[in-house]
Amino acid sequence: MKIGRRSIFLAGSALLASPAIIRPAIIRPAMAQPATTLPAQTPGFYRFKVGSFTVTTVHDGFVARPLEGFVRNAPLAEVQGVLRDAFLPQDRMVIPYTVTFLDTGRDLVVFDSGNGVTPAGATIGRMIANMRSAGIDPAKVTRVVMSHFHGDHVNGLLNAEGLAAFPNAEVIVPEAEIAWWGDATNETRSPEGQRANFANSARRLAPYAARMRRVGPDSEVIPGVRSVAAYGHTPGHTCYHIADGAEQMMFVADTTNRPELLARRPEFHIIFDFDAVAAEATRRRIYDRVATDRIRVTGYHFPFPANGYLTKEGSGYRFVAADWTGAV
Amino acid sequence: MKIGRRSIFLAGSALLASPAIIRPAIIRPAMAQPATTLPAQTPGFYRFKVGSFTVTTVHDGFVARPLEGFVRNAPLAEVQGVLRDAFLPQDRMVIPYTVTFLDTGRDLVVFDSGNGVTPAGATIGRMIANMRSAGIDPAKVTRVVMSHFHGDHVNGLLNAEGLAAFPNAEVIVPEAEIAWWGDATNETRSPEGQRANFANSARRLAPYAARMRRVGPDSEVIPGVRSVAAYGHTPGHTCYHIADGAEQMMFVADTTNRPELLARRPEFHIIFDFDAVAAEATRRRIYDRVATDRIRVTGYHFPFPANGYLTKEGSGYRFVAADWTGAV
Repeated sequence: MKIGRRSIFLAGSALLASPAIIRPAIIRPAMAQPATTLPAQTPGFYRFKVGSFTVTTVHDGFVARPLEGFVRNAPLAEVQGVLRDAFLPQDRMVIPYTVTFLDTGRDLVVFDSGNGVTPAGATIGRMIANMRSAGIDPAKVTRVVMSHFHGDHVNGLLNAEGLAAFPNAEVIVPEAEIAWWGDATNETRSPEGQRANFANSARRLAPYAARMRRVGPDSEVIPGVRSVAAYGHTPGHTCYHIADGAEQMMFVADTTNRPELLARRPEFHIIFDFDAVAAEATRRRIYDRVATDRIRVTGYHFPFPANGYLTKEGSGYRFVAADWTGAV
Repeated sequence: MKIGRRSIFLAGSALLASPAIIRPAIIRPAMAQPATTLPAQTPGFYRFKVGSFTVTTVHDGFVARPLEGFVRNAPLAEVQGVLRDAFLPQDRMVIPYTVTFLDTGRDLVVFDSGNGVTPAGATIGRMIANMRSAGIDPAKVTRVVMSHFHGDHVNGLLNAEGLAAFPNAEVIVPEAEIAWWGDATNETRSPEGQRANFANSARRLAPYAARMRRVGPDSEVIPGVRSVAAYGHTPGHTCYHIADGAEQMMFVADTTNRPELLARRPEFHIIFDFDAVAAEATRRRIYDRVATDRIRVTGYHFPFPANGYLTKEGSGYRFVAADWTGAV
């Protein structure tokens, strides 16, 4: 038990180091019990309903990257000010990853695949353990629905052995996305920082070649799930609208990175955007829709549990987390 | 497994009810595996550090009560508008309960005691199970530090047998709080809705009589924890400031109920306030301090994990949840 162990260590070392110091310490026999393995942190998953559907968001960890250069078209101090308003670190950009699962009763869907297997000590790659906590078996996933082909979204398609991490799933990809990254002649027409995506996405998708389906914009992916074109972040970046009965939500993927920074300031252009001008226009269009219609959203880089709403505020939007409840 | 079972049931009943309907259903042998017991929802606890101290917030559930009459000095429609802006229900007042634990290395402290044992089916009383998930043994708690004596804060002092739920703990109570509720002659001078607190708090505190300590305002409770007078919600309502090294936080208890409603509109007076005018003045004083100094707060009725910051906005404050992280 973490609390117990810490207490024992601190009390023990204080006694050893300075036996002459008298403190009004309470010696509790109960503290001497053997430590058991209990979690340092609560498991990173969260469940809620959309009609009769069950959505589970599963955390895949975070990275901290240099803040300098992250936003291309604003001074560092201005970016830091927005992060400060959100009580986020201002000396680095902390990017969380949270994957959305959907159980429709007939299908178990995962939207994008997480960072997959990462080296020991990495702060990403938590999805597999958190799926286990959530009771989600990758072998039971029937559809992997991709928003786009950036590494942090496709890398989890392979397991540690380099085989299909979702061995029984069909993979559904946006037509415009595979048209771009599947054609090597586009490589020289892509931003330099994005060129690795050609080889990487081909390798990650390879085991699924025989069970891949392309979807166009505004198409039914499976009953209750429709594609929503959201091009800009990548050539075929796609959101997914989910509806059952009177309830709806949208997986907004990378329409923005962290909303505390980029929903507040939709005019900020970040280094990961393939076409930042198109990405900004898409961001405003999608967020106007979900804000106007008060549609629940999940986002890939939203603060865990990555589940809430966007509301118009000033010239941007504010993310409002949905109320947490133990009653699913 | 919840997801697995639902899928099986839906697929099975569809087949039985309408065998003639042909659907493009995927039959997956893996779905027929026996269900295991996995959580419907992630356990309700969350950990973070304040210097070398470890704080754990533990969820105790929620109640839904009539919204009408909850705020005494504003029209219902105005209250509903504030809730709507926060994407909260507008036809009822959902009040969550989250209890703050502090491990200083020498003491395991709980601030208030939760709702305790509740009837089967109640939406409150989850703290005991969530403490277990968090690895917190009530027998190892060394101090129970009370903010005030309302039932939802003192009821958990007793276990199912009516004995001390924290059998090895000292109970620390605000001097002004026990002075009021410990003197029966104050009963007729208390608002009618608050009179049950006299008998109830006496009964809940009884097993701890021999190990109770009274603290005045602005006093050291234990090393690293100081009392902060916050009178109004009750005659002795007290917050606690926690500091270790350069880091600090404040348990603001019931300085407000849900911050989405009452931090946004500090002028709202609610039915649970003993002296609503004093409560409002206290609310503004405490929240001005934590907003100005950017002090992390936990609150008893804040949205789980009840951990974040208050920032000035307009004539009120906005609660900003601290960023969730799996890396404690």
